Amino acid sequence: MSLKSTLEIDIVKATTSKIDSVDFENLLFGNIFTDHMLVCDFKEGAWQKPIIKPYEPFMIDPSAKVFHYGQAIFEGMKAYKDENDDVWLFRPDENFTRFNKSAVRMAMPEVPEDIFIDGLKTILEIEKEWVKKGLGNTLYIRPFMIAIGSGVIAQPSTQYRFMIILSPAKSYYSGEVKVIIAEHYSRAANGGIGAAKAAGNYSAQFYPTKLANAKGFQQIIWTDDATHTKLEEAGTMNVFFRINDTLYTAPTSERILDGVTRKSLIDLAKRDGLNVEVRSVLVEELVNAAKDGSLKEIFGAGTAAVVSPIVAFSYQGTEYQLPKVENSFAQQLKEDLTKIQYKLAEDTFGWTVKV
Amino acid sequence: MSLKSTLEIDIVKATTSKIDSVDFENLLFGNIFTDHMLVCDFKEGAWQKPIIKPYEPFMIDPSAKVFHYGQAIFEGMKAYKDENDDVWLFRPDENFTRFNKSAVRMAMPEVPEDIFIDGLKTILEIEKEWVKKGLGNTLYIRPFMIAIGSGVIAQPSTQYRFMIILSPAKSYYSGEVKVIIAEHYSRAANGGIGAAKAAGNYSAQFYPTKLANAKGFQQIIWTDDATHTKLEEAGTMNVFFRINDTLYTAPTSERILDGVTRKSLIDLAKRDGLNVEVRSVLVEELVNAAKDGSLKEIFGAGTAAVVSPIVAFSYQGTEYQLPKVENSFAQQLKEDLTKIQYKLAEDTFGWTVKV
Ligand SMILES: Cc1ncc(COP(=O)(O)O)c(C=O)c1O
Ligand SMILES: Cc1ncc(COP(=O)(O)O)c(C=O)c1O
Repeated sequence: MSLKSTLEIDIVKATTSKIDSVDFENLLFGNIFTDHMLVCDFKEGAWQKPIIKPYEPFMIDPSAKVFHYGQAIFEGMKAYKDENDDVWLFRPDENFTRFNKSAVRMAMPEVPEDIFIDGLKTILEIEKEWVKKGLGNTLYIRPFMIAIGSGVIAQPSTQYRFMIILSPAKSYYSGEVKVIIAEHYSRAANGGIGAAKAAGNYSAQFYPTKLANAKGFQQIIWTDDATHTKLEEAGTMNVFFRINDTLYTAPTSERILDGVTRKSLIDLAKRDGLNVEVRSVLVEELVNAAKDGSLKEIFGAGTAAVVSPIVAFSYQGTEYQLPKVENSFAQQLKEDLTKIQYKLAEDTFGWTVKV
Repeated sequence: MSLKSTLEIDIVKATTSKIDSVDFENLLFGNIFTDHMLVCDFKEGAWQKPIIKPYEPFMIDPSAKVFHYGQAIFEGMKAYKDENDDVWLFRPDENFTRFNKSAVRMAMPEVPEDIFIDGLKTILEIEKEWVKKGLGNTLYIRPFMIAIGSGVIAQPSTQYRFMIILSPAKSYYSGEVKVIIAEHYSRAANGGIGAAKAAGNYSAQFYPTKLANAKGFQQIIWTDDATHTKLEEAGTMNVFFRINDTLYTAPTSERILDGVTRKSLIDLAKRDGLNVEVRSVLVEELVNAAKDGSLKEIFGAGTAAVVSPIVAFSYQGTEYQLPKVENSFAQQLKEDLTKIQYKLAEDTFGWTVKV
């Protein structure tokens, strides 16, 4: 273990492991958790000593601020196992930095690097059997922070709980993904919290997504709330559009999550000599490109879904099919990325970090 | 008790009461709770039998959806005691309807009327000693619902918990309220969840409010996120502007909470023969009215704060003072409203409901 920090962590080991009861070939995303969790409380203005202990429910007051005011943030990361049984993280510094950006936006205390990064490495060392070898197998990592202080007055809490829980996972979406372009609902406002991984951003999408599901679409591509003319991102993925041989993705903004997968794919595409432009794509452009055949690919990019090709989109009641392409950028970039993550290709970017 | 429903509720009484330890003259808003709470779970597609039991923390899984995706809604109501020791609710049907509107928007199950209304009356009957006589004394009522189903996949929960907790309260704000007009941050998007009492709407305001507090302002008056030119509402209050002798308040929309106090004040103002116009007020109008002296009053309106006069506002770094007026509309409407709530004036509107 490459943990060099002097972070003190209490460790209480589970007496038995659930691992033998888990069917690793048939995992539903995010519904089985490993034997341990990391817990670290913030109170009286300071982070307390973290503890790693058996995964279990905990007690909380009915008036806890997280229940009433949604003061809660999270991150999503993955651990990968290479052929030598070493466990790797992908750009964990990016998730750590983004977590604390989210914390600031939600008026929550920032988590110190040693608690987040070294705490994570320590629990991964304990749970390394849960990271399975083989492309597509991962251990999904969910660091999160909730406001546990009590009181039903709309003010920031003074007490918080930071936790890390771990869930073995294959990929997020299976099957073909069709999307609907948002014409009425929206995910984020200018000056809002769209760029933070704040809990409230996600439940806000459930109802419009349910409406989309009922029409046969798995996901929504959000547009800017003011004009609904600019394509932004999907619920848990940034989005790329390939028109002819140029790849477009929206610039990050206050309304868009600065995705680690997105920025990695941009770098990989550039390395591969692909033409990448970071700029807003208009809905109108997309529709025109679909009509004249220049629209070649749309794909989502995110930690959970990795690279998720989109086969069709709907706008104003019309469904536009994406063509089958031979030299798929989505496929190429997904391979580039996963090879680095699983240590099957040289990591010239220095993105991978050994646990 | 006027409870006529056939709702079955399990009741487990607390063996002792905290009431004698409470200093009812010096209450902080929302931080003391009564002896009991109402709990009702939703699972396998159905609401279970509600229980009223001692107020206490409960167990919840670290992966509960409320922590990760913010699926949580609430209401805010008050109970009032009249001179005959009867306890009254104010327009509880409005809160019930709004609660279920919020539920739909957040992809949560609607709560049946008997559980919400009759459940509330039943717990209030048990806790009636906590409602103190005298203008300004109230028992603040917090119905809320959280997603307790586990699993870190961004999808609606299948399990929910509806609860009612009660907190004795005087008024929300004390002292003079100065506000800042939002120029960059915003609270709600078109097509977003601003019209729902969703938990995430509130934590989203904590950081900008902290920045406002640091400049000496207690509250923010939000503007539309697209142009920041239209005045919308405050964090937990709708807002009224009096220019000369006309009272203005923004129309409700997807971005604005349809406040019970707001709509009651509109009715009371009309009854009193005041000139009320429901239309967006532009920031520019407000600034001009402040400059030429036609701006007479600004006040917030909400259950917690009742009617809260604003003494100054800041825009683009300039602070504008409100004049002291003799015939204050805020004062008049507050009296109108509280007299009805405390049964000191005839309730010609049929707003009050006896417990
Ligand atoms: C809203 C949103 N957009 C995009 C992403 C993709 O970000 P990342 O690649 O860092 O997982 C996520 C998932 O984290 C997300 O929640
Ligand atoms: C955002 C917001 N606006 C306005 C109000 C006022 O609504 P009501 O008068 O129903 O309490 C509240 C409080 O409930 C609120 O949370």
